[in-house]
Amino acid sequence: MYCGICHSDLHMLKNEWGNTTFPIVPGHEVAGVVTEVGSKVQNFKVGDKVGVGVMVASCKSCESCAGNLENFCPQMVLTYSAKNKDGTITYGGYSDSMVIDEAFAIRIPDNLSLDVAAPLLCAGITVYSPLRYFGLDKPGLHVGVVGLGGLGHVAVKFAKAFGCKVTVISTSPNKKKEAIESLGADSFLVSRDQDQMKGAVYLIGVFILALLKTNGKLVMVGLPEKPLELPIFSLTTESR
Amino acid sequence: MYCGICHSDLHMLKNEWGNTTFPIVPGHEVAGVVTEVGSKVQNFKVGDKVGVGVMVASCKSCESCAGNLENFCPQMVLTYSAKNKDGTITYGGYSDSMVIDEAFAIRIPDNLSLDVAAPLLCAGITVYSPLRYFGLDKPGLHVGVVGLGGLGHVAVKFAKAFGCKVTVISTSPNKKKEAIESLGADSFLVSRDQDQMKGAVYLIGVFILALLKTNGKLVMVGLPEKPLELPIFSLTTESR
Repeated sequence: MYCGICHSDLHMLKNEWGNTTFPIVPGHEVAGVVTEVGSKVQNFKVGDKVGVGVMVASCKSCESCAGNLENFCPQMVLTYSAKNKDGTITYGGYSDSMVIDEAFAIRIPDNLSLDVAAPLLCAGITVYSPLRYFGLDKPGLHVGVVGLGGLGHVAVKFAKAFGCKVTVISTSPNKKKEAIESLGADSFLVSRDQDQMKGAVYLIGVFILALLKTNGKLVMVGLPEKPLELPIFSLTTESR
Repeated sequence: MYCGICHSDLHMLKNEWGNTTFPIVPGHEVAGVVTEVGSKVQNFKVGDKVGVGVMVASCKSCESCAGNLENFCPQMVLTYSAKNKDGTITYGGYSDSMVIDEAFAIRIPDNLSLDVAAPLLCAGITVYSPLRYFGLDKPGLHVGVVGLGGLGHVAVKFAKAFGCKVTVISTSPNKKKEAIESLGADSFLVSRDQDQMKGAVYLIGVFILALLKTNGKLVMVGLPEKPLELPIFSLTTESR
């Protein structure tokens, strides 16, 4: 019924990562309603609200699967443009319907509407996971969110829900109102010198690193095509 | 009485980092005996065995100093080629004697001889600190040590003392005997294709990353002059 658009969908459509199988139906922030269940399905019934994220199958027997880390399973099957176990190609959330293993269907609560639930299946988990994994979910911590786009705006809401103080860092001064008034961020910082930064992950990194406290954590969830350059030396000498 | 040689000393002698003040007396793995104490010194007396590491002063009032992280103090004074508070230049461990604030003198136990204690002041703490900080000090963990040099061989001993299983990874097959028999490593791995790797931190990194378990930690304690290249994209696609 609903499907978010993730920038990965655009990369895949244009085969910018070189691994697209055509024809392709993208979409991995899928929200819908169960229309039919198999005889062995235990956890869902017709009419349930469910979501599907970036993957639809895994081996269920490796160490990663046993540890609830199916996303690291070597036999993980992506939601689209990937090969099913039977050799067919997967099609994503812009299909009219999907047949899905119940293990990879996510229950959407009744009080959450499908349209706003959809982006949580990728943008949401992409920021929720590192906030939890790196212990950035504790009241009183000061979390900076760099970029107020599809991922960033959800990160602000999660971090505020965890009780953190949140500063949004953006190159666009006109996002201040949304950050503070709509999303509840505590403060807003315009990245200095936009010219210097355009498209340069390296320079953005240096600027952001300089904002970190000692032993602070910089978590990068982007997926740049080129290797990320980390200026190790300046990290140590700048602290002197 | 003794002073280790760290590769940083060579960088500084040749001004390869561009921040050397000449004349220079290097040496920051210093082990000696107290010959004189000031009237306010509380913790040391003449004849005590002491060590000095990479720093000799800090502000003692900032957040880092208050948190026992004087090495991150913005006013930290390095052991040599740095400016003391009185404007004089610091000279390191190859001096005949040093005058040192007791806060930056480290007691060396009687049962540890000065010659073997000296390298612990830099090489030792440089590997001990990340092993502890990143939780790699738990029995049963499997720790890889890349390179069996001044730092690596101490890392093996610490990791074994913590109860870890230790694999040494080296480009030199002839270091296997030392790794296993002298240092007690559990296994030894020769890095593949040395030609491909010569001087290339990037390629070594890719090889090492491939050895990590899911959520394993790669800790880099080197100080390359050029930015380190991290192949973010291949990290994610190789797991598929």
